[in-house]
Amino acid sequence: MVRAMSEALAPANPGLSGLSLYVPRPRVALSAFAGWTGADPAKLAAVVGDAFRVPQPEEDVYTMAAAAVLRLLREHDVDPSRVGMLALGTESSVDNAVGAVIVRGMVDDALRREGRAPLPRDVEVPEVKHACLGGMYALKAALRYVQTDGADRVAIVVAADIAQYERGSSGEPTQGAGAVAMLVEPRARLLALDLRSAGSSSDERGWDFRKPVARHFMAEYPESCRGERDFPVFNGKYSTVCYVEAVVRALQSAHARGGGDPRALLAEPAALLLHRPYDRMPVAALGAAWVWACVRAGEREALGAACLAADVGFEALAAELAGESRVREGVLAHGPEFDPLARTQAVARHVVKDEGFARVLAATQPGRALVRQLGNLYTASLPAWIAAAFAEAHARALAWEGAAITLVGYGSGDAAEVWSGRVVPGWCEAAGRSDVKGALAGAIELAREDYEALHERRAPARELPAPTPFAIAGRGRTYGRNWQDVGVTHYRVSEAG
Amino acid sequence: MVRAMSEALAPANPGLSGLSLYVPRPRVALSAFAGWTGADPAKLAAVVGDAFRVPQPEEDVYTMAAAAVLRLLREHDVDPSRVGMLALGTESSVDNAVGAVIVRGMVDDALRREGRAPLPRDVEVPEVKHACLGGMYALKAALRYVQTDGADRVAIVVAADIAQYERGSSGEPTQGAGAVAMLVEPRARLLALDLRSAGSSSDERGWDFRKPVARHFMAEYPESCRGERDFPVFNGKYSTVCYVEAVVRALQSAHARGGGDPRALLAEPAALLLHRPYDRMPVAALGAAWVWACVRAGEREALGAACLAADVGFEALAAELAGESRVREGVLAHGPEFDPLARTQAVARHVVKDEGFARVLAATQPGRALVRQLGNLYTASLPAWIAAAFAEAHARALAWEGAAITLVGYGSGDAAEVWSGRVVPGWCEAAGRSDVKGALAGAIELAREDYEALHERRAPARELPAPTPFAIAGRGRTYGRNWQDVGVTHYRVSEAG
Repeated sequence: MVRAMSEALAPANPGLSGLSLYVPRPRVALSAFAGWTGADPAKLAAVVGDAFRVPQPEEDVYTMAAAAVLRLLREHDVDPSRVGMLALGTESSVDNAVGAVIVRGMVDDALRREGRAPLPRDVEVPEVKHACLGGMYALKAALRYVQTDGADRVAIVVAADIAQYERGSSGEPTQGAGAVAMLVEPRARLLALDLRSAGSSSDERGWDFRKPVARHFMAEYPESCRGERDFPVFNGKYSTVCYVEAVVRALQSAHARGGGDPRALLAEPAALLLHRPYDRMPVAALGAAWVWACVRAGEREALGAACLAADVGFEALAAELAGESRVREGVLAHGPEFDPLARTQAVARHVVKDEGFARVLAATQPGRALVRQLGNLYTASLPAWIAAAFAEAHARALAWEGAAITLVGYGSGDAAEVWSGRVVPGWCEAAGRSDVKGALAGAIELAREDYEALHERRAPARELPAPTPFAIAGRGRTYGRNWQDVGVTHYRVSEAG
Repeated sequence: MVRAMSEALAPANPGLSGLSLYVPRPRVALSAFAGWTGADPAKLAAVVGDAFRVPQPEEDVYTMAAAAVLRLLREHDVDPSRVGMLALGTESSVDNAVGAVIVRGMVDDALRREGRAPLPRDVEVPEVKHACLGGMYALKAALRYVQTDGADRVAIVVAADIAQYERGSSGEPTQGAGAVAMLVEPRARLLALDLRSAGSSSDERGWDFRKPVARHFMAEYPESCRGERDFPVFNGKYSTVCYVEAVVRALQSAHARGGGDPRALLAEPAALLLHRPYDRMPVAALGAAWVWACVRAGEREALGAACLAADVGFEALAAELAGESRVREGVLAHGPEFDPLARTQAVARHVVKDEGFARVLAATQPGRALVRQLGNLYTASLPAWIAAAFAEAHARALAWEGAAITLVGYGSGDAAEVWSGRVVPGWCEAAGRSDVKGALAGAIELAREDYEALHERRAPARELPAPTPFAIAGRGRTYGRNWQDVGVTHYRVSEAG
């Protein structure tokens, strides 16, 4: 009796059991992109990364998401009948009514094609949206599901996005496209995630990064930008300030809930993985986060050299961090250069070179070389880094059992999350199932004119192999009294994958 | 020690503690609408309802949602610092990046205007989408949050939508607009909801009801329909079939989890509240659901007269219900009239007149007169009915303590949910706080030309009072290198409400 009760009370240890990646095959190396555009290749390598993928016209966010889900079912040998939730996180929706159920439809078609049963009829199919954080919010929903009424069923969360920017804009080299499907189980086989110590932040930020539908119908928005491609309306500097500030506040929140040394979430994990709009952004935010953590810990000496170099006093720094950051109001009053954490960031620019920060930087290395190949995947960006980090840890046989992993999610607009995870025993078997490198295989290097065609969602001069396993087959064109399907995409399963 | 443990183990009884409604003031009575359009007023009254509301050009889904949230904070005296989640369910999004955080921004502005602290920085702000079911999916997310890492904080779920259809379409009289905010607590003060017995269904249905972004950029879609209004692409008969089939499957799922007499969820509750696209739809679905329940219970006699009248044999009926309903494939093969539950529906048309069905019908009465005033509120439709039912039960001092309430949610595309709730002791105090009738006060009866103007989101000839407490103040028009805000709406708090 006692034993039965203690078993019933044993922590369920919910978390991730596997991740599978899908990216489109067309690829642009940033070195080639620099050649086409006159950008400085060294700067792109230092700030942005190495490459990005571009979807074909026969791909959309749903085909990519379905491809990742199908890959997850196969790689992790998931019994479809055990799936109780299929959640989609995206900000690249092309239907304002439904999302995840479209992914479900394609996965069902593929399973049936193999002679297998589709997903069960009672699967929940929510789509979750908050810019680049939608996938993490969906993951929260799934983690809570498996802890409550999930009744030992599993959840699949798929984060998928197409990050495209206007040609010639500062965002263009930070593009990307892809999907990551995540298997969430009540007893995690890879990474246990205890949300009771998770930190959160949110604040309305107006115009740092938005996708207002109205712009497509306004004369001020260029004709060449309209359509399904959904380029964001954004202000680069302001967006950066929002990212840094939100991450610091979410870290504060995590510390308020979890307690302990405020530096622990940054300095102790085996891996420190963040939303990654481009390579340098996470490091910049971690610098500010480290400054906050040192201030919070009262570690005046640790910041001494950096404060001196930045000509910022410790008390002024502490006062700035203790203040309320009303970024939207600040930008309205002072313009887009306004930064409520200007002193913190000034100190951070020096602190990132300090020896004390070396452990933080080191924790951002697992998987980093691989995600530099991916560009910005928006909601899938952090999930892709988690997948890449575990792939590297597995390949290098790192002793990760029991190690802490800190995850930092961010979505413009804005909101952030800071979670602490724990690598579970047996993780290596689960990590070995995900063929992350294989997901990058078969890349097709694009010539400039073919990239330009794909950017406009036109077929390029060079004939490309059809996307597999899912592709857009066509689009309804009827708008009548007896039948309407105008604009509704239909799909084909082109092969077993 | 034993006591402490049993307290820790006591069921938290999560659920709803209050609901608050907001609807725009402009109103169209269906009797007037019939006069304008030549529709049969008796048929509209029998099938659709009594009236619908129309938003002003200064209102969007976010202003309505924020108004409902502010009303909830006030009516239920919610301490903003206790809120840990603000989730938005909608299919009327006008920004493809963010949603709930826009609502948060307006609520914060209103609280600050009153000299109060805004919502805490660590509030989660997910938007949840699945057609008319997004609000219920968001409610699931919130119920799971308060049961797990919510740490005794509360969640607010706001379901908000604008249902608009092309002028002259069959959908036009079923329009509506409004928002319902719901307070979710770990210890419910109104309606406890145990998701462990909830039933779910989902299946990809193609073109029953969709909002593809692509249509706005296709020649086949009328110029007059384009823009932010987001009229659905839909097929009425097919949508009806999907609704009925999905509800039957979700009921099956609930019975599979909860067990007992399959008729209990329909015949025993004090209130049976459904997603309500128009007045007759729930009754039609309940007829089919009742047929399924009787078949599942082996109650051959209960269906005898209806089977005879419909000329359908019991065994054929049972076989149809036991089959897999592949509605999308059926419609592709047989056209939009295809119905996988044709026999069930034929029997249902008779069974709804039977005495045995009277209890089911009676359970749809609480709040029904009030929601007939509202039109279709999409995601807010079922929440509005819950609010209306409790308002009526409170006004009539019904003995609801301990009573069962069955909730049936549905979202095209499609997915459904069937939940069983239990009215908690003290519900009357909580129900008395929601001024549902007050939310309908101040209606402005529209003249035909004013309705037509508002339908096009133009200012009508008749000057209308500005929406309160929130209104659209303007929209950014800049798209430059140094600043971008094109299409991004900004809002004003016009009064304390």
